[in-house]
Amino acid sequence: MPDDFERMWSDLAPIGRSSSSGGYFRQPFTQPERELSDWFREQAAARDLEVETDDTGNLVAWWRSGSGPGVLTGSHLDSVLDGGAYDGPLGVVAALAAVDELRSRGVVPERPIGVSVFVEEEGSRFGLACLGSRLATGSTTWEQARVLRDRDGVAFEEVVEGAGTGLLSGVGTFVELHVEQGRDLVDRGAAIGVASGIWPHGRYRFDFEGEANHAGSTRMEDRVDPMLTYAMTALAANKQARLAGSSRATFGRVEVTPNGTNAVPSRVLAWLDARCSSEVELADLVGTIERQATERAGRDGTSVEVTAESVSGAVTFDADLAARIAADHESGDWPLLPTAAGHDAGILSAAGIPTAMLFVRNPTGVSHSPAETASMPDCLAGVHALAETLERLAT
Amino acid sequence: MPDDFERMWSDLAPIGRSSSSGGYFRQPFTQPERELSDWFREQAAARDLEVETDDTGNLVAWWRSGSGPGVLTGSHLDSVLDGGAYDGPLGVVAALAAVDELRSRGVVPERPIGVSVFVEEEGSRFGLACLGSRLATGSTTWEQARVLRDRDGVAFEEVVEGAGTGLLSGVGTFVELHVEQGRDLVDRGAAIGVASGIWPHGRYRFDFEGEANHAGSTRMEDRVDPMLTYAMTALAANKQARLAGSSRATFGRVEVTPNGTNAVPSRVLAWLDARCSSEVELADLVGTIERQATERAGRDGTSVEVTAESVSGAVTFDADLAARIAADHESGDWPLLPTAAGHDAGILSAAGIPTAMLFVRNPTGVSHSPAETASMPDCLAGVHALAETLERLAT
Repeated sequence: MPDDFERMWSDLAPIGRSSSSGGYFRQPFTQPERELSDWFREQAAARDLEVETDDTGNLVAWWRSGSGPGVLTGSHLDSVLDGGAYDGPLGVVAALAAVDELRSRGVVPERPIGVSVFVEEEGSRFGLACLGSRLATGSTTWEQARVLRDRDGVAFEEVVEGAGTGLLSGVGTFVELHVEQGRDLVDRGAAIGVASGIWPHGRYRFDFEGEANHAGSTRMEDRVDPMLTYAMTALAANKQARLAGSSRATFGRVEVTPNGTNAVPSRVLAWLDARCSSEVELADLVGTIERQATERAGRDGTSVEVTAESVSGAVTFDADLAARIAADHESGDWPLLPTAAGHDAGILSAAGIPTAMLFVRNPTGVSHSPAETASMPDCLAGVHALAETLERLAT
Repeated sequence: MPDDFERMWSDLAPIGRSSSSGGYFRQPFTQPERELSDWFREQAAARDLEVETDDTGNLVAWWRSGSGPGVLTGSHLDSVLDGGAYDGPLGVVAALAAVDELRSRGVVPERPIGVSVFVEEEGSRFGLACLGSRLATGSTTWEQARVLRDRDGVAFEEVVEGAGTGLLSGVGTFVELHVEQGRDLVDRGAAIGVASGIWPHGRYRFDFEGEANHAGSTRMEDRVDPMLTYAMTALAANKQARLAGSSRATFGRVEVTPNGTNAVPSRVLAWLDARCSSEVELADLVGTIERQATERAGRDGTSVEVTAESVSGAVTFDADLAARIAADHESGDWPLLPTAAGHDAGILSAAGIPTAMLFVRNPTGVSHSPAETASMPDCLAGVHALAETLERLAT
């Protein structure tokens, strides 16, 4: 008999966890993420699921029941740097547990049910979020992906074999269960919700260039200091997102050259994460921040160049599918809610696969942090909700 | 016959130089710095100089001529991250070449002349500038130094044997030749100058703490983002130093946790380098920046703690010694000028050793940068000036 949800959850808990912060470092193709991948294969084998993979390392474990296009469910096992336990793994472990629930109830699906794990969902290593699902759907090509480099200069093509779009050929529907990354469900007093769509969002690299010089002997008026241009831009991004409403703008990653205490920097690289409720607003927000950065660079004598590393358009999930999933439960209808967080579900949806997402309540709303959490009763409610959903879609 | 200045200079040029930036990475106790240290021992041996060392790795090569307290000259071979070729090595190579000049002129010193190399002058690895000379003079103790850690967590005591104050026991006077890190000599039309003193200066670590969270789903008003507090502080530091006049304030080093594009940071560490023409002004400047940071932290919900990692008081070099060195040259008196840059000479002076500094003109004033430079005629003028100075002090 395979492990139940709580056992699987506690088995995963120590893998890639920092003893100092309690957060997770499960970057793609590193030892902790490989360990998680091996664990997934073992769990699939224990359930007689048939594992398929592609050259990128994406995995699908199939319950070969019935015929026709399959119902796929799953999520990812990688984490952001110093991330939480739930973002990703909850959807994978819940999927395995939902298969167990259906089998224990004697359900015989009329269509195959697959459990998926997509690699590099967070983009924490190669910078492009949802890289595994982008390659599996063909929305990013191997030629575009192979040259991406991590912070140590290692190219993507050095750690994976390649890409291919065959893995999803038998998929008719995709459902991703995920911990909510906000407090909508808390406010509504509901354990489970259904996603209506994903805000458009993007990652933009700001390259501020100045002139390195001595921090002591260089007069203030003689400096060409890109740190000042960056600092003003970080404050401007925050202010503009607040002014715009329904918007987010974050500078969470910065790399300074040479990064010495007694030297004016020559260069500051900083990454803007921006999201809005519509594509027009997103373009406006990023444009305003870039314009203010450029104006300040003019005053500082520095320069700034902005590169959009990835931009994802608005996703509206299949409304009929969401309604079919959300309706007629013991507790009433599950609420529909939008999210500002990107997911592999957004990539599969944009690729034309009818897609839905289930959210599990997050008591604090905190995510991408060691403090991310969900209660065990809510996680088990998620397993049950996913099992019900799979039964509706596959029988 | 030992190598002449130009030959020595070109031999050092490739060591630790980045092929991409052209700047130098000569951090203490790394391969390039060890190579420089070995080179120095070879040059000393070629001149029959007697090398003494201490457990920290500081070196003095003695020309055992005459008797009584010796005249020491030299500088350092380490660099800031991505630094220039001249800051440090110019003083060491010029010292060896000055010994050659004195010998070629048949000068027989009445006192020993030593050529010194102090380790970790820049503080680029263990954070405390002039660490070698601080330990050699006893102004920093081994107990204080041994626990210092570099960016990889390596402790100072793991890379050096210890410390001791014996190396400088035979030293009566110290003269350090250095490339100027400003444009005073350019403005005065002089190739050589003499230092009057060093501004008080310090390094202060600002520890901004907030709460990591998801960059997409966390509403702007729910964030506790330490990057914003840091950004305002960096701008405030610049503004306050400009307002104060005769002051410098620089944030050139920043470390963000977790430093992920899609996460609000939990922590930003940033280092302030501050310098003023008086100790009162320095305390005022740092106090004002810290107060503004704390006020902003109150608005952001973050916290900030400030730690003074090193503070060096004002140094006034021995006025009689400086006058004796500067007076009565063919070109007239060499100009006296203060500097805002710290040097081992400041540490030896504060330890009670009569100390002087010679500056060599820097055509652009740029330092701590791959663009740092000095003309070869000015470097050779520096060698000649140092030889004259040693002759005045040791005969």
